[in-house]
Amino acid sequence: MTDKTAALDALAALLGNRLNRSQSDRDLHGRSESHFPLMPPDAVAYPETTAEVAEIVKICAAAGLPVIGWGAGTSLEGHAIAPRGGVTVDFSRMNRVLNVLPEDMLAVVQPGLTREELNTELRATGLFFPVDPGANASLGGMAATRASGTTAVRYGTMRANVLALEVVLADGRIIRTGTRAPKSSTGYDLTGLFVGAEGTLGLITELTLKLHGQPEAVSAAVCAFDDMEGAVNTVIATIQSGIPMARIEFVDRASAVAFNAQSQAGWPDAPHLMVEFHGSQAGVAEQAERFGEIATDFGGQGFRFASKAEDRNALWAMRHNAYRAMLAAHPGAAPITTDICVPISRLAEAVEETAAEIAASGIPGPIVGHVGDGNFHALLLPKAGDAAQWEAAQKLAANMAERALRLGGTVSGEHGIGMGKMKYMKAEHGEGWALMGAVKAALDPDGLMNPGKLVPGN
Amino acid sequence: MTDKTAALDALAALLGNRLNRSQSDRDLHGRSESHFPLMPPDAVAYPETTAEVAEIVKICAAAGLPVIGWGAGTSLEGHAIAPRGGVTVDFSRMNRVLNVLPEDMLAVVQPGLTREELNTELRATGLFFPVDPGANASLGGMAATRASGTTAVRYGTMRANVLALEVVLADGRIIRTGTRAPKSSTGYDLTGLFVGAEGTLGLITELTLKLHGQPEAVSAAVCAFDDMEGAVNTVIATIQSGIPMARIEFVDRASAVAFNAQSQAGWPDAPHLMVEFHGSQAGVAEQAERFGEIATDFGGQGFRFASKAEDRNALWAMRHNAYRAMLAAHPGAAPITTDICVPISRLAEAVEETAAEIAASGIPGPIVGHVGDGNFHALLLPKAGDAAQWEAAQKLAANMAERALRLGGTVSGEHGIGMGKMKYMKAEHGEGWALMGAVKAALDPDGLMNPGKLVPGN
Repeated sequence: MTDKTAALDALAALLGNRLNRSQSDRDLHGRSESHFPLMPPDAVAYPETTAEVAEIVKICAAAGLPVIGWGAGTSLEGHAIAPRGGVTVDFSRMNRVLNVLPEDMLAVVQPGLTREELNTELRATGLFFPVDPGANASLGGMAATRASGTTAVRYGTMRANVLALEVVLADGRIIRTGTRAPKSSTGYDLTGLFVGAEGTLGLITELTLKLHGQPEAVSAAVCAFDDMEGAVNTVIATIQSGIPMARIEFVDRASAVAFNAQSQAGWPDAPHLMVEFHGSQAGVAEQAERFGEIATDFGGQGFRFASKAEDRNALWAMRHNAYRAMLAAHPGAAPITTDICVPISRLAEAVEETAAEIAASGIPGPIVGHVGDGNFHALLLPKAGDAAQWEAAQKLAANMAERALRLGGTVSGEHGIGMGKMKYMKAEHGEGWALMGAVKAALDPDGLMNPGKLVPGN
Repeated sequence: MTDKTAALDALAALLGNRLNRSQSDRDLHGRSESHFPLMPPDAVAYPETTAEVAEIVKICAAAGLPVIGWGAGTSLEGHAIAPRGGVTVDFSRMNRVLNVLPEDMLAVVQPGLTREELNTELRATGLFFPVDPGANASLGGMAATRASGTTAVRYGTMRANVLALEVVLADGRIIRTGTRAPKSSTGYDLTGLFVGAEGTLGLITELTLKLHGQPEAVSAAVCAFDDMEGAVNTVIATIQSGIPMARIEFVDRASAVAFNAQSQAGWPDAPHLMVEFHGSQAGVAEQAERFGEIATDFGGQGFRFASKAEDRNALWAMRHNAYRAMLAAHPGAAPITTDICVPISRLAEAVEETAAEIAASGIPGPIVGHVGDGNFHALLLPKAGDAAQWEAAQKLAANMAERALRLGGTVSGEHGIGMGKMKYMKAEHGEGWALMGAVKAALDPDGLMNPGKLVPGN
């Protein structure tokens, strides 16, 4: 592997101690939040400029070395691990806010900046960046995986909130997509092509993000339901009535129990909805009242409101820690995340069929979801080392994917494909998956950008 | 040209009298709304099914014949004319609403359906499709050109309102992009790739569109300003204040004069803003009041409100007929449309520099615009046959494009590239334009889908 050695030496000459070949750092970048085995890269690069990223890509391209982007390492489908080795480009040193343009409600940032860091910097401007996947993910990673989360029902996903990009292509060329104008009709939507491409077409080195005005008033609330059906039907009726919900999250009984154990939530052991309203004082009050009426009609009760920022933050922190709370409630489990999304009219069927099948399996599988978008997750928790349970859980996950497609939906609402969902791509996209492969081959003919992810035969 | 003759015979065998080779029909499909010379196809096909479209494309592909999609023929940059001949696929017989899904707020339609036809069909549902480019364009054409118009400031462009597509590719394969779920994270955004591709990557044969609830209350208003500066600054302040304007249109003095002549508007000879508010009764009243305060601060006066539907329709019909009103006001002119879009913070500079340069040229060039998006148009009206004026007008248009890029914007907010704006693509996109060419080559290696448009060397 002379080529590889020479390339790594060239990278070391370029980056000095910002090229790390230690086993510990390679292993750190070979792990994911999910169940994949360790797949470390040959080295980890820590660039500080776009020019360095371009140089790294050129050196790797010449040596046939894979290049994998790394943000905060919070992805759930093994997006950033290195099944074929190569060089992981860790963007943690490219984490600056380059420009805030309040008059245009835009921020220009580097990819390693996290969403919480951005919002901290924006605090004094009256603006905020709304996309909130829960984890304090990097904005580059969020764009690459087309992340969404609790607020997408109101503010859209990363697709709607990335206006322009700078990207280093597979041959090291640097391009800019989009402009600062609010819209454009000048050719293929390259920004949209890179958002969600999971680093398989290039590395995002700069993002221009849309900001939103901090709402004048914010109020959050929680209410319990006797059964899942009442909660889900409340969501459907709420969305269909056009109430501009800022958040509307479903939490099943098992998740509520885990929240109580982890965060002393003191909730009844019952399915819940967690909601948030943004607007003027009068608007928020009106929305809350209309939502309250709908929820009450479907058996919602015990409304608890959180109008103070610290109470709301505690509430959403609990929601964001659901994954850890559930793992804590099931020590020794080998978690399998799921992430289906269906048309809102089919949400009740999708959730109820899933819950019934999980209950019948005997495998723990608490369900939470960004149900205003038709998106929900079961966290399947087979016992680690129990092959039969593992297989049964995989079957549950596959059935969820099949159910999503049968109901007109998608096998991933927000987690993306990575290594975990490749097996469902053909079923969802048919010939469209081959088309993705054709785009990939055109832009990365040697298949070096994040290989093993997303596209066929990659 | 045996191949061509044989292919046309095969198409005639497939379509019967739905293949039209008459000179008159070819000429009809060789003209555009703009200044391009006649470029007719060899034949016009009128398919009724996706299967027929696929068969047409296969026959043409085998014979090396170009294939051009045709909706309502309202595009402004020569998108649908046939510079290399071939077969124009006229979608006027594929104009049905296939499905309305009120619970999911979606409609599934064929590409030849026009936006007005769709909204007529939706009237009883309480839903509507908001994108409004003015012309009663076909929805397939609107998707292909990423159209927007007066309401994009509130509801977004076609990019935001197309959820899924069926597309016939260059080799006749039929693919589906997207699902009916509100969001998805499963790979490249193929829907977004075809929206705005101007038929250069495939033919759209079915669209799943997002619908919106008809607002409880709608109110429109017009007000006059002493000068352009006051009107434009009102727009900037209104957008920055976060008032959710449904429409906010700038009309310059020359356009107001043309409106008076064409539609007996009875407006003062002054710059105007035309606005519309959507919401609850209370919300609309609040928005109108806040807007009125801002406009008054910048010298707005003589507010005239239109709350009745017929008055509003007359108002927007007048706006939509601006192009014809201006042509009528300047008989014997050879119009050149322009369409730049800039960040909202640079709008005043962009409009004022443009207006001053047009005034200095002596060529009529009334300005209107969807200014809430930073998008405006000057309709340059050199005398037909006056080479010096034509050249001067082309220079004005080129300077507008240069100005848009200098101010961080784009050379087309909504009209698209077609044949008219190819000359600006390299300046706007740099290497990104080559990337578009690489995508094109991958999906249409023989370059037969709408050749001569959008991509380099095509």
